[in-house]
Amino acid sequence: MELQEVLHMNGGEGDTSYAKNSSYNQLVLTKVKPVLEQCIRELLRANLPNINKCIKVADLGCASGPNTLLTVRDIVQSIDKVGQEEKNELEHPTIQIFLNDLFQNDFNSVFKLLPSFYRKLEKENGRKIGSCLISAMPGSFYGRLFPEESMHFLHSCYSVHWLSQVPSGLVTELGISANKGIIYSSKASPPPVQKAYLDQFTKDFTTFLRIHSEELLSGGRMLLTCICKGDESDGLNTIDLLERAINDLVVEGLLEEEKLDSFNLPLYTPSLEVVKCIVEEEGSFEILYLETFKVRYDAGFSIDDDYQVRSLFQVYCDEHVKAAYVTFFFRAVFEPILASHFGEAIMPDLFHRFAKNAAKALRLGNGFYNSLIISLAKKPEKSDV
Amino acid sequence: MELQEVLHMNGGEGDTSYAKNSSYNQLVLTKVKPVLEQCIRELLRANLPNINKCIKVADLGCASGPNTLLTVRDIVQSIDKVGQEEKNELEHPTIQIFLNDLFQNDFNSVFKLLPSFYRKLEKENGRKIGSCLISAMPGSFYGRLFPEESMHFLHSCYSVHWLSQVPSGLVTELGISANKGIIYSSKASPPPVQKAYLDQFTKDFTTFLRIHSEELLSGGRMLLTCICKGDESDGLNTIDLLERAINDLVVEGLLEEEKLDSFNLPLYTPSLEVVKCIVEEEGSFEILYLETFKVRYDAGFSIDDDYQVRSLFQVYCDEHVKAAYVTFFFRAVFEPILASHFGEAIMPDLFHRFAKNAAKALRLGNGFYNSLIISLAKKPEKSDV
Repeated sequence: MELQEVLHMNGGEGDTSYAKNSSYNQLVLTKVKPVLEQCIRELLRANLPNINKCIKVADLGCASGPNTLLTVRDIVQSIDKVGQEEKNELEHPTIQIFLNDLFQNDFNSVFKLLPSFYRKLEKENGRKIGSCLISAMPGSFYGRLFPEESMHFLHSCYSVHWLSQVPSGLVTELGISANKGIIYSSKASPPPVQKAYLDQFTKDFTTFLRIHSEELLSGGRMLLTCICKGDESDGLNTIDLLERAINDLVVEGLLEEEKLDSFNLPLYTPSLEVVKCIVEEEGSFEILYLETFKVRYDAGFSIDDDYQVRSLFQVYCDEHVKAAYVTFFFRAVFEPILASHFGEAIMPDLFHRFAKNAAKALRLGNGFYNSLIISLAKKPEKSDV
Repeated sequence: MELQEVLHMNGGEGDTSYAKNSSYNQLVLTKVKPVLEQCIRELLRANLPNINKCIKVADLGCASGPNTLLTVRDIVQSIDKVGQEEKNELEHPTIQIFLNDLFQNDFNSVFKLLPSFYRKLEKENGRKIGSCLISAMPGSFYGRLFPEESMHFLHSCYSVHWLSQVPSGLVTELGISANKGIIYSSKASPPPVQKAYLDQFTKDFTTFLRIHSEELLSGGRMLLTCICKGDESDGLNTIDLLERAINDLVVEGLLEEEKLDSFNLPLYTPSLEVVKCIVEEEGSFEILYLETFKVRYDAGFSIDDDYQVRSLFQVYCDEHVKAAYVTFFFRAVFEPILASHFGEAIMPDLFHRFAKNAAKALRLGNGFYNSLIISLAKKPEKSDV
């Protein structure tokens, strides 16, 4: 199966769907919001062509479920808030928003939420129906999505760490893995594997920057948030916990070793320096803002959530309740790609083990997601200056 | 339930889905194609802003299934053919296409077809990946869909005969129907019912013209195809056949009379004169071309199709095979709205009776769909001339 066909969040609205398991992402959005507002503020001051009439925006890797529209809401609110600050005008410019994700993404479920979303936007934000136009543009964001110089602002949260493909050469023709027992580019991976992943990320992120710079108007903005490398002191990240769970299944004879060895995630956790270096090297964008932040695995968890009820695990201590929360979120993101390689049948056992590992990490106080946020402005064309 | 929630074609890819039952529509598209080409020819000659760089197009009421992309293919081919005629250029302008239908439409199934569609377009038409950008804009086409003066060409096939709502006042507060035993504005409807339907169509079509004229650039084109009134000699149309089937169910005690009396389709079959008059009255558009055409119910039927195999009806004569074909197509379009009112359970019986009625009409040689095609150009703003 093509990577694009398995790389999507769990669809629908069931207990393991992405739609029902994204409080963590909501928390990240609150971290992103001040930077988003500042980004929009600078964009509106830059006075790009047509921006006062209709501002054109896209969310790249929008996924499905309530977060998709929370991002849209944040963008709309930021535009309206800044617009009023700057001009004291009550008239809102039209906003045309394109939601982008892969062809297999569950757009239908997002579209069904739109009528009530539009009504809410009108009631709470005074945004008249028809003044915010939400459309979808399916396809890989490593390819062209929009006409040349047509967009004002591109946003992407937790997507650009997904590679366009697993780096080639990780498994030899004879089926021998260069990354034995490991499922991504981790500290434990041999240097050639780490290099192959870095090369793939460099290639993909360079393509991403080049293509989307072509789509943006000169002076247009891009705001990206993605996972990134943590500190030495952070201990294991969630991918490590998953890797450990898979290894345990192999050791206990429940999964063939060959299955593990032939699996590598199309995902890379870059360091801040790597991201900075690629942007500078590619050359289309100026970096306006760059920071990293840490969020605990169980951030966004609240005892009021019904994760406890929905949990399949016996609740015998607080870490386990929180671990169930972490697992539900993680599963919503990773299950499709894992199930397509390891099979549906092993998923409950795999995520049960993942949850136990997550509980241990939480008990040790070292369960963190490390994220990076970068705000970019498209440099003027040489002919513009 | 809101009308917008039940008014959609049968989704998915099953035997009664719209996706599998649209050979008839394909035939109509071949009727539309020469007019489409002429429309595009005039549009490209009119030299609208930005049109040589990126031509912006929408298909309003795109439905789901292969026809959705056949329409897109026809539009792309027309643009490329005319572009080459006019300028002998090998360079294709980018085409940005918006597929529009109601929020409940099955867009996911269309998106899943896009990767192979793009590859085919590249192979057969030399359209490089990324030079044709297909997005979706969900929502009612009786509301704003696109930014002001942003579009070059709007296309709609077999959609504008759907009203935004059933005309009000057809059933009194006491539940007494003004259109007893009838399910739309037919020849047999009392004059006040016919007037209520005409008023609703006039209101809706006027709104449609006004809103989409705002979205079009001055000189932009709109090409609409819809069903229309037939001649006296045409006999019963398919809605009449459906109405007769429902009445038979009532007579035989299989359906409550109240159910029939409280049902009216949100659909109107206008005459050519009515359409012409509304366009002139609304005033934003100039009529470039207007014609009606007839297509037999069983047009597009071929014995090679697997309708015979898929038919639930016993095949005992040719009309019945053709009637099964007609029924499959009709069912794909009308089942959702009928099932939401009359219940799922009665659907097989209802369509069985419909098929028998259709076979009779075909035997008498008077089964026709009457269609109308109108090509419009947005008049220049007063300030433009």
